This record gives sequence, structure tokens and C-alpha cells, in this order.
Amino acid sequence: MTKQRAGTQQSLIVTALDFAGTFLFAVEGALAAIAGRLDLFGVLVVAFITALGGGIVRDVLIGAAPPAALRDWRYAALAIAGGGMTIMLWHLGLQPPVFAVTLLEAAALALFAVAGTEKALEYNIPPFTAPLLGIITAVGGGTIRDILLNLIPAVLRVDINATAALAGASVMVVLRRSAAGPRIAMIAGFGTCFLLRLLAVEFHWQLPVLSS
Amino acid sequence: MTKQRAGTQQSLIVTALDFAGTFLFAVEGALAAIAGRLDLFGVLVVAFITALGGGIVRDVLIGAAPPAALRDWRYAALAIAGGGMTIMLWHLGLQPPVFAVTLLEAAALALFAVAGTEKALEYNIPPFTAPLLGIITAVGGGTIRDILLNLIPAVLRVDINATAALAGASVMVVLRRSAAGPRIAMIAGFGTCFLLRLLAVEFHWQLPVLSS
Amino acid sequence: MTKQRAGTQQSLIVTALDFAGTFLFAVEGALAAIAGRLDLFGVLVVAFITALGGGIVRDVLIGAAPPAALRDWRYAALAIAGGGMTIMLWHLGLQPPVFAVTLLEAAALALFAVAGTEKALEYNIPPFTAPLLGIITAVGGGTIRDILLNLIPAVLRVDINATAALAGASVMVVLRRSAAGPRIAMIAGFGTCFLLRLLAVEFHWQLPVLSS
Repeated sequence: MTKQRAGTQQSLIVTALDFAGTFLFAVEGALAAIAGRLDLFGVLVVAFITALGGGIVRDVLIGAAPPAALRDWRYAALAIAGGGMTIMLWHLGLQPPVFAVTLLEAAALALFAVAGTEKALEYNIPPFTAPLLGIITAVGGGTIRDILLNLIPAVLRVDINATAALAGASVMVVLRRSAAGPRIAMIAGFGTCFLLRLLAVEFHWQLPVLSS
Repeated sequence: MTKQRAGTQQSLIVTALDFAGTFLFAVEGALAAIAGRLDLFGVLVVAFITALGGGIVRDVLIGAAPPAALRDWRYAALAIAGGGMTIMLWHLGLQPPVFAVTLLEAAALALFAVAGTEKALEYNIPPFTAPLLGIITAVGGGTIRDILLNLIPAVLRVDINATAALAGASVMVVLRRSAAGPRIAMIAGFGTCFLLRLLAVEFHWQLPVLSS
Repeated sequence: MTKQRAGTQQSLIVTALDFAGTFLFAVEGALAAIAGRLDLFGVLVVAFITALGGGIVRDVLIGAAPPAALRDWRYAALAIAGGGMTIMLWHLGLQPPVFAVTLLEAAALALFAVAGTEKALEYNIPPFTAPLLGIITAVGGGTIRDILLNLIPAVLRVDINATAALAGASVMVVLRRSAAGPRIAMIAGFGTCFLLRLLAVEFHWQLPVLSS
């Protein structure tokens, strides 16, 4: 009962962030799938999984099943719209410039990191583990996609994605406990993740490898 | 509370379709695992996962945890019986003819597509996303198996499986809203998926690849 | 409601076994990740997943979402402590001897097999399928890790892990129904799994491969 109600009450801010991130990640997923030479259906599936996989895993983990992405038809519609639009533009010979894809990826990452952490807190996940749900929301879809495409997920290889998401989520959780208020905390968390990701791409940042 | 009750109330028709699909998929999974040179335990594990993986994921996603496949011992018994029987027949030198395996796969696919969509609707998943749960039920087990065997899941490569499941599930959802009634809708959905899958195998249908 | 309460009531014995297994598996996961040349963050992620992945999947499947590993910060702290300690020791040039790693793996496996089966029974999973949850708890984390590292999971290849976990869990379930009482049943289940695993490593036991 508690669950059902809480599920329906996902706050407006989580929904808005989720919607924006969903569309951006669907575009990014479709671009990756086209590059991977999948068939038409595969491209839509990959766009769908990239966009909604992270949020679905988050919702299952925090006890918000059925996940918003399955309960609310607008998520699926946004993912299909993002994927379909990308396919059509690709057919017309239009491909987004590299810097636009980089911006888009960073924005989607930061939106999902913040939305995932916020929703976890709303479901009473403690502040110490809530950022984990932010990371899962942000990199979960891409990770499931990489697993399906038989790649070692970027999150375990060279990528700074998870680190940026963790930083943004942690900034948000810490600021929330200060006098800043939830809105400022979310904006600061978004900005931290977004900037870290862009700087990492620009300067080819990588975490140190341990093995000698 | 709602959940617990609803979970117990999985309709008879879903249970019957699930049982039939479970046995068929366990046979198919065991055949694939034997071909993949797994050990005895591995063959049973793969038969189990192929048969029950899709339904377990569906139940977790629609909020029906613990999944029927874990709550009701008959699912596990059917999966082990299907896998064990296949191993024994293989030991006796008996392998099913190719056309029988094709029929069996198509029937299991269609049974699970219909059962998964029906159960999702019973759990108040909206008609627009319910077919997704049908697809997940139908191809989820095989996809988990392929991931464990380190293959790119068939669903993302050449296979028409997911498309056939989507078509069957969509026919079912649309007919349900007409005057046809749920029973006719299910039979039509089953027939659509079953025939599409057989025709796709017979005529080597494939969806177009996008990349040039 | 039922769920929420039951989730909070996870018995003390499950928590104690889970804690011990979590720390041991985090050490083992970190050692594997260092050998796999992951970066610093990757090593911690792999330690975390190896330690907590199985229990998280178990909790989602038995309807105990959010999983204890996310609801209770001590699990995450133990996993990070185990992973971090391993990294520091590795940096100091200290690597555990092979037999110690073997003992550690066997103990973690047996702890999780027993804890997973016990928790499943507490959540009213029937005795016939409860051992499956024990296996998932015991080998789930390592399986998710192998999937992420793009390896065929050990559970499907040569390993006796899942068989030992199944044996331990089955012994426990059977003894529980006798006059032995739950405590004796758990100790016997732990011992069975622990010894089988050690013997399998020592004598290079493998299950027979079916294909000719």
C-alpha cells in the first residue's frame, strides 16, 4: 500500500528530469546502435534500453515496482520518439556534430544522476547509499546496452562516467543536509556531474590503473 | 497487501500458458546447452534459465515478487523435467528432428508472449507498455542465457523473435479492446506470433540493417 | 506493509552471515579486479558487485525490495572497506597466499549459500526452490562480475561453486525438517558447502561434460 502510493507520488521534479534524460539517452543509444550496424528493430531496442534501463533497475531496487517507465506510457513514447527521430535524421544523411553528442551525453548523465539520487531519497534509501542509485540510473542503461552488445561496459573500462555521477550525487546529498535546500542541491549536483564529464572528455582524464 | 493478493491470483489461463511454455523452453534450452558443450549441471542451469528467466524478470518488473517461478514449485519441477528428459534422450542417441525444434520454439515463444502480456494487463500495466512485458517474457530467458554464454543475444542480431512476439502481443491488446473478448484476443495473438515466427524461419526473413 | 515489516525483520543470523560473507567476497572481488588490470574505481566497483550483487538479486526476487544492501549502510561500508583494504595491501606489495584465498572463497561461498537459503525460507519461499536463492546469493555477485568483465561466468564453465552451494543449501533445508533444529541445519549446510568446495579445488573435481 505504502509502496503503491509512494510510486504514484514520484515528485514532479524527478519526472521532469527523467523525461529530459530519457529523450537524450534514447538519441545517444540510437546513434551507438546505428554505428554498431544493428537492424531497425535492434536500434529501437537499444535506444529504449539505454534510455529506460537505468531507471527501471533503480525503481526495482528501491521497491517502486512496477517501474515508472512501464507504468507511465510517456517514458516509452519519449524513448521511441528519440530513437525514431535519430533513425530518420540518419536516413536523411544528418548526423549530429561530435561536440553536440558530447554535450548531450553529459547532460543526460547529470540529469539521471540527480533524478536517481532524488528518487532514492524520496523512497527512504539512506544518504550513504542513495548516490549508488543515482549512479545506477545514470550508467545502468548504457551498461545493460554494452552487456547486450557483448562489450565490457564502459563503466568498468576507461570511462569517467560513473565517477562524475558519483561526484554529482554526493554533492547533492551533502548540500541537501546544509541550509542550501533541495533545489540548490540538485542544481549543484547537476553542474558538478555535467562539468566533470565535459572536462574529462576534453582533457582525456582517466583514473589510474592499479596493475603494474 | 494488494501485491501479495494479486500475486496469488495469477489467473488460471496465465498459469496454463506459462506451464506449457516453461516445459518447451526447458527442452530448447537444454538442446542449446548440450550443443554448447556445457557440463551436466550447466545444461540444467541453462534449461532452467531459458525456461524461467523471462517470467521471473516479468514478475519482478510488474511488482509480482516473489515471482511465480520461485513461489510455485511446479515451475522449477517442469523446467528440471524438461531439461532432464532432454539429457536422457540425448544419452540414448535420440535427437529431435530440426522441424520439430522449430515448431517447439515457435510455440513456446507465442505462449510466453501471450501469457506475459496477459499477466501485465492483470497487474494494471497500461496497454501501450504491456506488450513489452510479453516480449520480455518470451525472449528474456533466451537473452539471459546468451549473456551468460557470452554471445550477443539473438534478439539484437538477426532474429525475428522479438518482432513476432511484439506483433502477437499487439494484436492481442488491440483485439481485447474490441468486441472480440479476451479468449479470442489471446488465440489471435498466439496465432500471429506462432505463424510469423515459422514464416520467418522458412523464408529467412530479416529486418533491414541500417548502417551502410 | 507486510513487505516493509518483513524486510526490516531480517533475522540476526542472516545479517551476521551476510556481513561476514560481504567482507570476504569484497576482498576476493578486489583481488580478481586488480589481476584484471581495472582502474581504481573499477576495482572498488567490482569488489562492491562481487560482495553485494548476489544478495541484492536475492532480495529483489523474494520481494524484499529495497534490498538490505541498499537499505542498511553497513553492507556498502563493509564492501568498500574490504575492497579498499585489499588495494592498500596490494600497494604495499602484500598479496595473500593462494591457500588463504582458497579458504576465503570457500568460506564466503558457504556463508552466502546458508544466509540466502535461510532468508528465502523466512520470506515464505517453498523449501523446494529456497536452495535456488541460496545459490543465487552465493554465486550471483561473481556471475554479475564475470558478465561485466565479458567472461563466460564460472558457474557455467568448470566450476563446482554452484554445485557446492546447492549441496549445502539442500542439506540445510532437509535437516531443518528433521529434529535437528535450524541452528544445527545451518552449521551442517555451511560445512557441506565449505568442504565440498575445498575438496573440489584440491582434487580438481569437475562435472562431466555432455557433448561428445
